[in-house]
Amino acid sequence: MISTFKQVDETDIAFLRSVCSPDRVLTGAEISEDYSHDELGDVRRAPDVLVKVLSAEEVSAVLKYANEQTIPVTPRGQGTGLVGASVALCGGIMLDLCAMNRFLELDEVNMTLTLEPGVLLMEVSKYVEAHKLFYPPDPGEKTATIGGNVNTNAGGMRAVKYGVTRDYIRGMEVVLPSGKIIELGGKIAKNSSGYNLKDLFVGSEGTLGIITKLTLRLLPLPQYKISLLVPFPDLNSAISAVPHVIRTSSVPTAVEFMEREVILAAEEFLNRKFPDNSADAYLLLTFDGMSETEIELAFHAVANRCLELGAKDVFISNTDERNESIWSARGAFLEAIKASTTEMDECDVVVPRSHVAEFIRYASSLQQKHGVRIRSFGHAGDGNLHIYVLRDALSEEAWKKTLAAVFEDLYGTAKTFGGQVSGEHGIGFAKKPYLAESLAPEVLALMQGIKRVFDPKGILNPGKIVV
Amino acid sequence: MISTFKQVDETDIAFLRSVCSPDRVLTGAEISEDYSHDELGDVRRAPDVLVKVLSAEEVSAVLKYANEQTIPVTPRGQGTGLVGASVALCGGIMLDLCAMNRFLELDEVNMTLTLEPGVLLMEVSKYVEAHKLFYPPDPGEKTATIGGNVNTNAGGMRAVKYGVTRDYIRGMEVVLPSGKIIELGGKIAKNSSGYNLKDLFVGSEGTLGIITKLTLRLLPLPQYKISLLVPFPDLNSAISAVPHVIRTSSVPTAVEFMEREVILAAEEFLNRKFPDNSADAYLLLTFDGMSETEIELAFHAVANRCLELGAKDVFISNTDERNESIWSARGAFLEAIKASTTEMDECDVVVPRSHVAEFIRYASSLQQKHGVRIRSFGHAGDGNLHIYVLRDALSEEAWKKTLAAVFEDLYGTAKTFGGQVSGEHGIGFAKKPYLAESLAPEVLALMQGIKRVFDPKGILNPGKIVV
Repeated sequence: MISTFKQVDETDIAFLRSVCSPDRVLTGAEISEDYSHDELGDVRRAPDVLVKVLSAEEVSAVLKYANEQTIPVTPRGQGTGLVGASVALCGGIMLDLCAMNRFLELDEVNMTLTLEPGVLLMEVSKYVEAHKLFYPPDPGEKTATIGGNVNTNAGGMRAVKYGVTRDYIRGMEVVLPSGKIIELGGKIAKNSSGYNLKDLFVGSEGTLGIITKLTLRLLPLPQYKISLLVPFPDLNSAISAVPHVIRTSSVPTAVEFMEREVILAAEEFLNRKFPDNSADAYLLLTFDGMSETEIELAFHAVANRCLELGAKDVFISNTDERNESIWSARGAFLEAIKASTTEMDECDVVVPRSHVAEFIRYASSLQQKHGVRIRSFGHAGDGNLHIYVLRDALSEEAWKKTLAAVFEDLYGTAKTFGGQVSGEHGIGFAKKPYLAESLAPEVLALMQGIKRVFDPKGILNPGKIVV
Repeated sequence: MISTFKQVDETDIAFLRSVCSPDRVLTGAEISEDYSHDELGDVRRAPDVLVKVLSAEEVSAVLKYANEQTIPVTPRGQGTGLVGASVALCGGIMLDLCAMNRFLELDEVNMTLTLEPGVLLMEVSKYVEAHKLFYPPDPGEKTATIGGNVNTNAGGMRAVKYGVTRDYIRGMEVVLPSGKIIELGGKIAKNSSGYNLKDLFVGSEGTLGIITKLTLRLLPLPQYKISLLVPFPDLNSAISAVPHVIRTSSVPTAVEFMEREVILAAEEFLNRKFPDNSADAYLLLTFDGMSETEIELAFHAVANRCLELGAKDVFISNTDERNESIWSARGAFLEAIKASTTEMDECDVVVPRSHVAEFIRYASSLQQKHGVRIRSFGHAGDGNLHIYVLRDALSEEAWKKTLAAVFEDLYGTAKTFGGQVSGEHGIGFAKKPYLAESLAPEVLALMQGIKRVFDPKGILNPGKIVV
């Protein structure tokens, strides 16, 4: 499909300027270099034209035109993705949705928030929490747009108890490549009315349609929360405790694991001490609820169980300051690791919880096998692991080769454990070969068939996921 | 598509008998009349041949053959559906999956249960609760198969707190019309690996593939539960209290509403007294949790709020006996209403919670407008309403005409409230025209396109949902 795209020309630019105001249609050197890549970094291409849209109607007019002319269209939020999904691989039009960032309606009776896709995740939390409401998904990257979160089905740290982004999307407005604006779902809590198109758009990385409005499901804001930082003598005993922790009592909000090396890197990066760095491995647990009593009951049982299972201590963090000190370190892990090397790439596999310890050990063993530094931390409670491969002083050629070999091993082993290629970052461009390898050909063909149904000319975010 | 189906002949029967043992391939008078309808009743047609399959391999062999020969295939569980989805409208082969009813693996570490689709919902609960685990979806019809529940995305009473069937399906094995057996998802808790096919099969009513294995997500079993039966002077004050109840405290497990008429019918049907029948309308609330303290905190706050909002009293039910007496009555509402009339049909709309009171009032007003008895009860907490239209002494012709007029009004009004045609029963055959009317033509076209991708020859459960 890609070879048949029409090159953007002056007539196209003129059309776009007639639809959106000319100052929101940029070309050539007017387009910041930021728009040619995402956080992955090594996939780069600038769009031919950048259109900063303000409404579903503008998106509709642009898509209709692009579809008629067969010009590729790549949607874009904050560009915080890690798999190259928001890079205009085939040039063409980039739709910047960041300025569509209005809160439209907080409905306290139905406990929903309707908003535009460009609102930042951190703004969503702030807004709803001021009304004692709660949007549970909590991906590490708070400056991502909510539209980006929906397009990758972002997970985050609270998934153990609350699930992922998909679980909080009640309804959406989507513009199809034809320009038609459709509504899916709504403020309703149940729906068995035909095929579930809404959940097909969630996680579709801008390849099936452009989401222009979202209705989020909210919960009552938990009034109390507490974190437990639990040092273990080694990673194995830490991870082995996780299933027991989850079975002991009420489900924890989050169960993260971390190793000393990553904590030390975060301390250096933040120039701030972590509450403890004496142990080889830690579990970080959070509990939340409506009453102190409820949470205390939960965490006492868990703390005792951890000690029985070999924990060296249990640090209780029940003040905002202490919570902040732990979670700001947790939030800085990615940046800290990044700062410690020249370049890095990551693998975002998800495996069944029962295989987390084994998988982490395996990933660690690849350091010696391939002669490369590998760091990991992540969501022990939900099996979604972030494994970072660090380039350090490797040459370009050695880096590419090593990275491919490490990824081949990681994804291959994840598959034998019943895992999947991506837990929350998506496929984009960078993980396409691994997705293709992990899926049965018939499953891949179904996905390609779905793509053709929604986007017959293949103009939407070409080169991503399965095409 | 339908007109081009091949008629089942002796060669086909011989093939089916070679794949499955001959005693599991029935034809003509050997097929019980039960297989020609579901609980809807008025859509009837017997399949040409009934095949009682035992394995995915048998399903695969049958589908591959049927697809090559263009013979329709209708999957069937317990036939407890309410929209004609498991009726072989075009004849052909009926696949009875009830004998595929083995528990395959309870995985306590990953908290999943892997099982075959023919296991009954009530058996699932019993099995996991014996291991202190919990499968939250709780549709009224406990003798339905889990496969049927997944195919309709059944909701049930605990949806307010726990969500619907979809939220508890981690993985599945599906046989495609080509005979290919595919696996989707797994035991993993997060997944952003390409288009979400798993959730497309959930709620697809056997039209895209035949589910032959399921992996369910389980939770720790709540150790305590309590029900509150709250009489209100009228339906309006009862329903108006619901949003306040949900905002007061921890989310209740269930929020059901019922009117005196329905309670009286259930008392007569069960020949047993309900704890109270003096009020016009009731809310029935349940709370569950891991500690008595936790639940007490929640229900005290809610009980006080209800009294402030005009409740006449609050009956607390915290023993198994009292809970049983209330919930067995609730479970008998459908049968009790059915027993009170000659025939009935139902509308399973879902509206935003904010419109429940208004919609119930509207539905009730249609009794006078159309000269027909209408009863309703249901899930006030999630907006999924079950409205039953009773035939009583109407002639066949008058009944059809009245029913169509009432449905037209109900679905039309639900749409103006931002509702959808089905909250949990599905579309099947009976609700097709209402679905078609409620969806934008472009959305319907996308659904039809998806059907063609999965089932190009249209052999799977023809005449349902959108074809």
